[in-house]
Amino acid sequence: MHSGLRIAVCGAAGFAGALCASLVQRHPQLELTLLTARSDAGKRHDELYPRYRVPLQMGEFDADAVSEAAEAALVAYPHGASAPAVKALRERGLKVVDLSADFRLDQGRYESYYQPHGAPELLEEAVYGLTELHRDAIRDAQLVAAPGCYPTAAILALAPLRDVMRDAIVDAKSGVSGAGRKAELGLMFSEAADNFKAYNVGGHRHHSEIVQGLNGISPAPVTLVFTPHLTPMIRGIHATLYARLTKTDVDLQQVYETRYATEPFVDVMPPGSHPDTRSVRASNVCRIAVHRPREGDIAVILAVIDNLVKGAAGQAVQNMNLMFGLPEETGLSAPPVLP
Amino acid sequence: MHSGLRIAVCGAAGFAGALCASLVQRHPQLELTLLTARSDAGKRHDELYPRYRVPLQMGEFDADAVSEAAEAALVAYPHGASAPAVKALRERGLKVVDLSADFRLDQGRYESYYQPHGAPELLEEAVYGLTELHRDAIRDAQLVAAPGCYPTAAILALAPLRDVMRDAIVDAKSGVSGAGRKAELGLMFSEAADNFKAYNVGGHRHHSEIVQGLNGISPAPVTLVFTPHLTPMIRGIHATLYARLTKTDVDLQQVYETRYATEPFVDVMPPGSHPDTRSVRASNVCRIAVHRPREGDIAVILAVIDNLVKGAAGQAVQNMNLMFGLPEETGLSAPPVLP
Amino acid sequence: MHSGLRIAVCGAAGFAGALCASLVQRHPQLELTLLTARSDAGKRHDELYPRYRVPLQMGEFDADAVSEAAEAALVAYPHGASAPAVKALRERGLKVVDLSADFRLDQGRYESYYQPHGAPELLEEAVYGLTELHRDAIRDAQLVAAPGCYPTAAILALAPLRDVMRDAIVDAKSGVSGAGRKAELGLMFSEAADNFKAYNVGGHRHHSEIVQGLNGISPAPVTLVFTPHLTPMIRGIHATLYARLTKTDVDLQQVYETRYATEPFVDVMPPGSHPDTRSVRASNVCRIAVHRPREGDIAVILAVIDNLVKGAAGQAVQNMNLMFGLPEETGLSAPPVLP
Amino acid sequence: MHSGLRIAVCGAAGFAGALCASLVQRHPQLELTLLTARSDAGKRHDELYPRYRVPLQMGEFDADAVSEAAEAALVAYPHGASAPAVKALRERGLKVVDLSADFRLDQGRYESYYQPHGAPELLEEAVYGLTELHRDAIRDAQLVAAPGCYPTAAILALAPLRDVMRDAIVDAKSGVSGAGRKAELGLMFSEAADNFKAYNVGGHRHHSEIVQGLNGISPAPVTLVFTPHLTPMIRGIHATLYARLTKTDVDLQQVYETRYATEPFVDVMPPGSHPDTRSVRASNVCRIAVHRPREGDIAVILAVIDNLVKGAAGQAVQNMNLMFGLPEETGLSAPPVLP
Repeated sequence: MHSGLRIAVCGAAGFAGALCASLVQRHPQLELTLLTARSDAGKRHDELYPRYRVPLQMGEFDADAVSEAAEAALVAYPHGASAPAVKALRERGLKVVDLSADFRLDQGRYESYYQPHGAPELLEEAVYGLTELHRDAIRDAQLVAAPGCYPTAAILALAPLRDVMRDAIVDAKSGVSGAGRKAELGLMFSEAADNFKAYNVGGHRHHSEIVQGLNGISPAPVTLVFTPHLTPMIRGIHATLYARLTKTDVDLQQVYETRYATEPFVDVMPPGSHPDTRSVRASNVCRIAVHRPREGDIAVILAVIDNLVKGAAGQAVQNMNLMFGLPEETGLSAPPVLP
Repeated sequence: MHSGLRIAVCGAAGFAGALCASLVQRHPQLELTLLTARSDAGKRHDELYPRYRVPLQMGEFDADAVSEAAEAALVAYPHGASAPAVKALRERGLKVVDLSADFRLDQGRYESYYQPHGAPELLEEAVYGLTELHRDAIRDAQLVAAPGCYPTAAILALAPLRDVMRDAIVDAKSGVSGAGRKAELGLMFSEAADNFKAYNVGGHRHHSEIVQGLNGISPAPVTLVFTPHLTPMIRGIHATLYARLTKTDVDLQQVYETRYATEPFVDVMPPGSHPDTRSVRASNVCRIAVHRPREGDIAVILAVIDNLVKGAAGQAVQNMNLMFGLPEETGLSAPPVLP
Repeated sequence: MHSGLRIAVCGAAGFAGALCASLVQRHPQLELTLLTARSDAGKRHDELYPRYRVPLQMGEFDADAVSEAAEAALVAYPHGASAPAVKALRERGLKVVDLSADFRLDQGRYESYYQPHGAPELLEEAVYGLTELHRDAIRDAQLVAAPGCYPTAAILALAPLRDVMRDAIVDAKSGVSGAGRKAELGLMFSEAADNFKAYNVGGHRHHSEIVQGLNGISPAPVTLVFTPHLTPMIRGIHATLYARLTKTDVDLQQVYETRYATEPFVDVMPPGSHPDTRSVRASNVCRIAVHRPREGDIAVILAVIDNLVKGAAGQAVQNMNLMFGLPEETGLSAPPVLP
Repeated sequence: MHSGLRIAVCGAAGFAGALCASLVQRHPQLELTLLTARSDAGKRHDELYPRYRVPLQMGEFDADAVSEAAEAALVAYPHGASAPAVKALRERGLKVVDLSADFRLDQGRYESYYQPHGAPELLEEAVYGLTELHRDAIRDAQLVAAPGCYPTAAILALAPLRDVMRDAIVDAKSGVSGAGRKAELGLMFSEAADNFKAYNVGGHRHHSEIVQGLNGISPAPVTLVFTPHLTPMIRGIHATLYARLTKTDVDLQQVYETRYATEPFVDVMPPGSHPDTRSVRASNVCRIAVHRPREGDIAVILAVIDNLVKGAAGQAVQNMNLMFGLPEETGLSAPPVLP
């Protein structure tokens, strides 16, 4: 039909990859030309996600086929599986936005949390794709690492405070889709519904990503406690952040409003607000509210995103727009689904 | 049938009051003799809660009738409505466990958060009914104020740290039944399901109850930030507590295990654990896990209770048992409902 | 900005009306010019539904103001309140799609289920807006009554069988948003979650609408049992229909595929399929599967819609498109929200 | 402690088996002496289900060990795995209640739906354990096959109509725990929450069990359509039954009230009622309401049970009580969990 930039989505059967496919399919200036999947290879995409209406078969990954079909790729493989695929695509000259953790961290951090890195030579060119913080670098990037869902919320929420905060606690709550599309006992409806719990309090991989992301903003290293929780909802992240301030004579509301004044996908809410996750359900937005209870030295920041949109596929397309010089909001204007 | 101590439940139509009625009804040494309700007066209890099988009509509150029918009362009226009813019952000599906020706080705190107090002369005799902390006083009490659900979880979780902590953050998540049985837009299924949000970050009434409860343990006043959240589940509270330690050479796990070693309703879980709310659903238990991420100076304590049982009706009956010299666990042995 | 046909939405604070506003706001050929509300009059729409980004204040209903601002109106008032508003707008020449029950039924049926009719003189010109059945009449209509959510699913599912069926049972399950945005005890999260029940088995208002809708297709009057149920989900209707066949040598799959072959918003699924409500969540689609267990004389038809989209606001806009000669799918291409 | 009849539970890691263990553990006249499990063998039960407080390790199945430890066994293995275990226990003289499908059906029905039968020689002695219908036979039985959850609801709901009905439709809705404790994509929270769908419309195994159960009551064979649905709740079955009557001059309400007048675990509700699943959550009760819309020839019967209690473990213990001459209600008096 239309002849936009040709895009492949690798790993289109998972939640984030499937949403990438749907967003590209509906994007006015991108054309979806090829899909791959791992265990679901051979199936049509609209068999797994019928009403996304993506009438393509998902194939095995073949770098040559991808490079023939597309100028750029969104890669949504799990960490570890992503690095070699990205390497093969970069060798063939494709621009890539990778949604895994493989290109988010420096090698040391990555290997201490995950495994030996499959393509460390690409780490130098990889740009961390938190759009609101690294827009210029993303415009020029050939490889962008789309941030994790927790880090997106946490870093957007804390970034404006970097100069006036001592340390921080990130108490984050995620919907179950954040764990991906996989069959595990703890993610079953009968276990996860009507239930709430923390997990990985001893150390979650996103801890280092948040720390690295915040350290990139300011020279003063940040001390951080990060507690993720599983919430009985499908989508959404609510991060409650507690930042201990070094100065309390700052108008925090003003700091946030100024910092995000021109951002199309960040809403700073009026004083006294409490964002709820449903207000961003299915949309590419981060909403933030700023509190300082009892005028103390702890700022309480509330931030919500949809983990699959601003926390994954939406932000990936936002970055792809920038990499091709398109208006950043193109194809990302869907409103939230309410109620 | 059996002829135990005769108990009335005032305010038996709400969630907590109804559960009080059910617990007393099945209690082997208490006999449920009278119920009252406010807007539902005139209805039979088993019409509203059919299978609780409490075959009594709920009447208007009449202190003389209550005192004729019962030696003691569980009062589950809303704050403000409770004080005059309790006063009338105490004047007639009944022992009372009150589930409202009316007798939990000193007069100053109460009136700054709620309203002019309706029976301040009773505050001196009221014992704060967090059983594990005030067991001896409860045994001798004529009037016990059953704690709020958030304070129950928060104080049980922080009490063992009082001597080694500087300040604390209480990030608490509650199921929707914590708001009681009332029709409000924000509590509707279409608004509260698949959604997560904080509320009253600027100042929740339970903040002062937690502070007062903790100050009662140790002379050093505690600084506290308290953030309540609404979670899309029916029952359960998960409190995630961040205590900044003054000493880090303490074996926290040991401290908790020792402190609660003989408590029938507090479980200290093994190191590295993450309690989930469903593991206490419908049972009178608090489960606690202790973490110290990266061996830092922040202890992360996880605590779960069922807000309607240990956070309300169960703890009220636990106190009533003590007030009458019965074994504390009597009538409270129901296991959780899993899955 | 753009200068499309100017549209007002009356009753924009409820779920369906708010979605009408959002759909018109994003519609490439309609322009949203005015909103009204009843109890929320005076508030801005983006205060209630922030990320819909409809930057208009909702006013009291004033027919002159509406007719100055708009050429057509979507009216989403409750039944009874709608008729006089529609009457005033029609007197001023506006085209109207009404989402209430006021213009769906003949006067006798309406008044036996609801109340005395407020504008019976308009019933003759009102066209029943089940688009797939009455497309031509809708194109020429000045007043369209958008069908109820249950009737939309039931009639679309049964229409192809009208010539070969004797009677039918409609066992329908609805998400809680079908009851609208109102605070009622039975719709509270604590009552409706983790719960399932039938309601109005003795007689639901939509019974007569389904019967009338089916009778309009074929001269043989249909006998119908209709049982609605409340399901613990926010959105979605699943209708399970049991039609007793007069002929069993018909290829039912073929009948449905032929009947809906060219319909953009009706999917007939392959044999053996089971549609789920999430596959149409937030999209304007009806998906239908046809079964005949054990080759018996009972056809089991499964049909799903999103009650707020194809069952309300989406179908209303679909009709508005037709009334103005626009392509029927304009502004209605949003994919479902998965997971 | 107490020395009741010694009971083993085989297959104690699944939802139903674990609940069997919990019920026996708390039963005043049964003593839980041994547990087995398959993939979870070697774990302690209170590791998987902490607050059930069953302090036993689950071992591999060893018939000799079971027969040494117990006089009777509740067997909750999957179908196919159950038959050989039951056979070995029966050979050693133990009384058995089996919760699988292995002894519910005659051999022909069983093998057409499941697989070759592993112990057909036991089918003759097996009694179908729908207590309310077969109480006397159960008292004398050595082997009882506890009914499936759908058949329990359906047969209890239809049995009183057997003499006046022609055929029936069973439209049944189940919570997700009905599928057991297993990791499957379709049972994940992200897929099953906020979603509703039918499944196995072409033929569910319980169809034959319902038919056989109903045929056992009356000589006239019944024609039945059975449609199961998956509902986004953890527990509960709601069966909506449509029985075509051969006589319409019968007082159906009276028929049901008479039939179940003395049943401790069946509630016939007042005319016009709508039972909800939460009213039986966690309790061993079936609640039934009877409707005849528009005085037609279709009776609409509504029946709810908790699939894990009356639909599985509770009914198994109810039968065990009978087999040992204990009062039928012993250990089964837990009220529902509300809200």
